[in-house]
Amino acid sequence: MNDDRFFMELAIEEAYKGKGKTLPNPAVGAVVVKNGKVVASGFHEKYGGPHAEAVAIERAGEDAKGATLYVTLEPCNHYGKTPPCTEKIISAGIERVIVGLRDPNPVATGGVERLKEAGIKVSFSVCEKECFELIDDFYTILKTDRAFCSLKLASTLDGKIARKDGSSKWITGEKARRLVHRLRSFHHGVMVGISTVLKDDPLLNVRYISSDRQPKAIVVDGKLKIPVHSKLVKERAQDLIVITSQESLLSYKSGILKDFGVTLLPVYDRGGVLDLEEALIKLRKELGIYSVMCEGGSILSAALIDVDLVDKFYFFYAPKLFGEGVDMLRGFSFEKSVSVFSVEAVGEDFLVKGYSENLKRFLR
Amino acid sequence: MNDDRFFMELAIEEAYKGKGKTLPNPAVGAVVVKNGKVVASGFHEKYGGPHAEAVAIERAGEDAKGATLYVTLEPCNHYGKTPPCTEKIISAGIERVIVGLRDPNPVATGGVERLKEAGIKVSFSVCEKECFELIDDFYTILKTDRAFCSLKLASTLDGKIARKDGSSKWITGEKARRLVHRLRSFHHGVMVGISTVLKDDPLLNVRYISSDRQPKAIVVDGKLKIPVHSKLVKERAQDLIVITSQESLLSYKSGILKDFGVTLLPVYDRGGVLDLEEALIKLRKELGIYSVMCEGGSILSAALIDVDLVDKFYFFYAPKLFGEGVDMLRGFSFEKSVSVFSVEAVGEDFLVKGYSENLKRFLR
Repeated sequence: MNDDRFFMELAIEEAYKGKGKTLPNPAVGAVVVKNGKVVASGFHEKYGGPHAEAVAIERAGEDAKGATLYVTLEPCNHYGKTPPCTEKIISAGIERVIVGLRDPNPVATGGVERLKEAGIKVSFSVCEKECFELIDDFYTILKTDRAFCSLKLASTLDGKIARKDGSSKWITGEKARRLVHRLRSFHHGVMVGISTVLKDDPLLNVRYISSDRQPKAIVVDGKLKIPVHSKLVKERAQDLIVITSQESLLSYKSGILKDFGVTLLPVYDRGGVLDLEEALIKLRKELGIYSVMCEGGSILSAALIDVDLVDKFYFFYAPKLFGEGVDMLRGFSFEKSVSVFSVEAVGEDFLVKGYSENLKRFLR
Repeated sequence: MNDDRFFMELAIEEAYKGKGKTLPNPAVGAVVVKNGKVVASGFHEKYGGPHAEAVAIERAGEDAKGATLYVTLEPCNHYGKTPPCTEKIISAGIERVIVGLRDPNPVATGGVERLKEAGIKVSFSVCEKECFELIDDFYTILKTDRAFCSLKLASTLDGKIARKDGSSKWITGEKARRLVHRLRSFHHGVMVGISTVLKDDPLLNVRYISSDRQPKAIVVDGKLKIPVHSKLVKERAQDLIVITSQESLLSYKSGILKDFGVTLLPVYDRGGVLDLEEALIKLRKELGIYSVMCEGGSILSAALIDVDLVDKFYFFYAPKLFGEGVDMLRGFSFEKSVSVFSVEAVGEDFLVKGYSENLKRFLR
């Protein structure tokens, strides 16, 4: 690994500290390097807050003069909520800038050209794939009017998410389960179908790792079957959003749930199948939820794929075989491509990450 | 990668030239290196033939003096079909020996000690995992009295080997399909269930790559449903083995198949399920078939796993999702562990290789 990749990976690590907290802004990280040593680092912490490169340069102080700046995304060159980062870089006396990814937002690009004009040496496309992954959610919300949607499933090598008797405990190992909580923290909401709530009584929150905010819990539940004694209603009512049909809003149950503090989000019911695109649009527009991770069950997952609403796939495979059991995807048949960009070991399991066709053209 | 790994990988490549041809001997490769250059190489070509290290040393001639020998498996120290390789190495004046894997065969081990006694520098466990894979079939037949059995399946990311309509063409890409032919060449026989023959009319031979011998075609067909106009009967009758029930041997169809030159292998029928262990024992003992690769369908594959007869798994995954479709494994439910030892990209697809619990304890 060369030095540029090494320092860019540090910048990527910085950026992940803000992942899921910056939307609708991108997650960005930066490090300032002088004489082969990191003198300062920074990340974009929240929407409207200072940009990563500005934070890092500020922290570097006098050391910024003659230093190299590594930044995961092209520095902005326009007046948005903050002044353009390019001017900050130029006035700080940075000598060289290494950019992970050119900005896919047409309004924000041009930073590289501005820096070059000012006589700064600029390289780009270092760890580009990893830097794109940092902003895949941001990129998707630029291109659509709905929330970004990831799908996470954990299965055996033969594609089963539960045994024949329906039990699904401990398919993947501890490392994978811990990573799922990190992935949850990267999203504004964690979504499941009502069958999963009835079977597992989940909390859908971030545990095992520290996190200063919790994603909302989102349940797709056309007939409001969610039990008032479920953990979600009892312990997380204020954080709970139930996507349901217009008709169910008139029911007695809807009043009870509202009294608990649950948010009901009505969408159109197309003959027993809720309009999931409308749901993702309303989550974003009405509730400010810019990214969602669906964690099953198999019918909701297949329904989302069927209408091309899944942007990113996280498939965990445990080194097991069940034979007959519960399929990963059920109730819909299709032929969809996944653009796999990473296959990595996670303890005894492995994780396959991929993008849908929508995002594919952006990748090499 | 250090030099030792580099040269051992060349020795492994050599060994693969004999893979599938040496059983019941192991596949072994060797290279002789002097002043950082390969001066000779060799592999074990066939059962009873000269050993890899003997071939390489012979070819090196005078250059063997003071050279380093890389050999994938510990040199033998006993008189078998050939004199002990250790003596050959010592008398050739080899200075240093790098051994990939200690010999798991108790009769053959001791080579490392003999070489050290003679004052030769010996290292071992270089690329050990890859060197074990070379001899996984040999190792299995040492420990059992049946043929070694691999299972190869190609599925979507959601574990489907065919679409809802049963079609299974072009699930994986060309590179994966080509690799399957190489894997076939590593085995004495390629096995499928009768449903696969009725659906796909396959030839089960090695194509796309050059091969000086063809694996036998093996069909598990309890009721002798195999059509006389199938490609297997018409084009490969002499290479075709049909595993069937004792009862079916008395049928009219059995006489027709025998007239074509087909070999019928009767095994016990346990209430509609053929005794597959008996089949693997008879393939080895009666027909000299020491290794078999099963390529489906999903019921035969699950039946083999159910009774712990699969030693090695080759799971190809295409970056696709089908939702409803034909499952990889059907008709049996179980909970089996797979010891995954490799996940690698094969064109757009990826290949997961693993061993069953039987072989697992040998791995790190």
